[in-house]
Amino acid sequence: MEIGIYGLGRMGGNMATRLAQGGHRVVASNRSKGPVDEAVTHGAVAAYTIEELVAKLSAPRVLWTMVPAGAVTDETLEEFARYAATGDVFVDGGNSNFRDSMRRAQRYSEQGFHYLDIGVSGGIWGLQIGYCMMVGGPPEAVAIVTPLLDTLAPPNGWAHFGKSGAGHFTKMVHNGIEYGMMQAYGEGFELLHASEFDLDLRKVAQVWNQGSVVRSWLLELAERAFAAEGTDLARIKGYVADSGEGRWTLHEAIDHGVPMTALAHSLFARFTSRQEDSYAMKVAAALRNQFGGHEVKSE
Amino acid sequence: MEIGIYGLGRMGGNMATRLAQGGHRVVASNRSKGPVDEAVTHGAVAAYTIEELVAKLSAPRVLWTMVPAGAVTDETLEEFARYAATGDVFVDGGNSNFRDSMRRAQRYSEQGFHYLDIGVSGGIWGLQIGYCMMVGGPPEAVAIVTPLLDTLAPPNGWAHFGKSGAGHFTKMVHNGIEYGMMQAYGEGFELLHASEFDLDLRKVAQVWNQGSVVRSWLLELAERAFAAEGTDLARIKGYVADSGEGRWTLHEAIDHGVPMTALAHSLFARFTSRQEDSYAMKVAAALRNQFGGHEVKSE
Repeated sequence: MEIGIYGLGRMGGNMATRLAQGGHRVVASNRSKGPVDEAVTHGAVAAYTIEELVAKLSAPRVLWTMVPAGAVTDETLEEFARYAATGDVFVDGGNSNFRDSMRRAQRYSEQGFHYLDIGVSGGIWGLQIGYCMMVGGPPEAVAIVTPLLDTLAPPNGWAHFGKSGAGHFTKMVHNGIEYGMMQAYGEGFELLHASEFDLDLRKVAQVWNQGSVVRSWLLELAERAFAAEGTDLARIKGYVADSGEGRWTLHEAIDHGVPMTALAHSLFARFTSRQEDSYAMKVAAALRNQFGGHEVKSE
Repeated sequence: MEIGIYGLGRMGGNMATRLAQGGHRVVASNRSKGPVDEAVTHGAVAAYTIEELVAKLSAPRVLWTMVPAGAVTDETLEEFARYAATGDVFVDGGNSNFRDSMRRAQRYSEQGFHYLDIGVSGGIWGLQIGYCMMVGGPPEAVAIVTPLLDTLAPPNGWAHFGKSGAGHFTKMVHNGIEYGMMQAYGEGFELLHASEFDLDLRKVAQVWNQGSVVRSWLLELAERAFAAEGTDLARIKGYVADSGEGRWTLHEAIDHGVPMTALAHSLFARFTSRQEDSYAMKVAAALRNQFGGHEVKSE
């Protein structure tokens, strides 16, 4: 079938390629020109503006955005709405907050469009393996995009989880779990690395991936990282960004009264990793100095 | 080759079966008679005492214990030492504390025996898939048991990690990571379960296992559990035991100054799960009542 995809970054670009390889007619667009020309080499049709993207598709169109969450997504969807026709399907495949997705679904359905929020997981490996996809929105819109989802996902790798917001909510919690798993592995490898046994961490990861209880895809990536970087990871600073979904998950945990202590600490460990110095620890050092005369380190 | 295995519980019994199926001559023994007779039906030779176990093997013997950590392991090894001959190999495949393993390696090597500590992971699935095994001890002893490890493990599923203690240390950290991963999944599914989206958690686990970043063997087991129990898990109480390795990991983290906050909270979440009531929360409720007149719940 046909699809228009806007946003050809690491995720969107590879998804366009996978769809074109799957026999779909992919019209690909992006804010800058380079990724569009790149997509053409992978079998896509170029569109240099959203107006052109819409014009090169026949109704009912599937207009799929893969851009950063927030204002950029809103701007893209507004452009879709400017040129699209009643009955067209808008898909937000980015990491939008599910509350934004519920709001947008309401807004665009009132304008006569279909709206789907689809959480997409798989990172840069999705091109090869397929993307795991979590879908929220009306069933009639899901039916329209089903051939695309069947191409993008591995077998049984997508599902319709419910009303608008359900897709991005499920993806948000997925990412929250990811934080906890990464922290668990990180802490475990740090203790192994600190031990007196001089362990070969690459071999540990490799062996653990064969039949152990902690085997996982993330652990396979750890094995790759140790192989590529050396087990001291000397080149890599222990500085970890976060793109918002862990924070949202924790907000939801608070609102629902769900104790997510491992997630909270995994998120806070990332905050700590980005501090040059800790004001909390300055205060603690100052207090030890006040009550016990303990020495403080100074800059 | 030949092996004597003592302790035919869920792990040891299946390991004896896998070894016998792999063509080894397995002499199997256990404190109670039933599991020995069961092992015979899977191809093992019966031994109803450790004396008989040793007598039915020719030197150099491999005497492998799969009994609970602590006093039972010590008693079993002392029995091995009573009947074994110089050059025999003792293997502790249980979940012993690595410090005990270092002490025992010292003790039995002084008596002329070889000693190996082997952490074994794979649970009840190991019979079919193979066991992931982490080995510590002298290389000459590892060489003797290599044909057994090759049968027990999946391809590339075992490794020699270093001197005595390295096997059980690596297994201990493995289990610590397992606590964190289980907590991350548990918290995530609790938030999904608490949400307004009425999500099919079995389908979530199933889809996440296809190409998502959080796919893992534990998540496959979650999918099985939801299928078998229903997604409300109504039959299962939220009460989680711990068999010591999480505690030891945290002790080691403290001794090495390694911040393992996700592990700490995962372990403490298990402690909380086993409390009828919380004294800490009684104190907090009492204090709110004292300073703010807030109501307390009473029994």
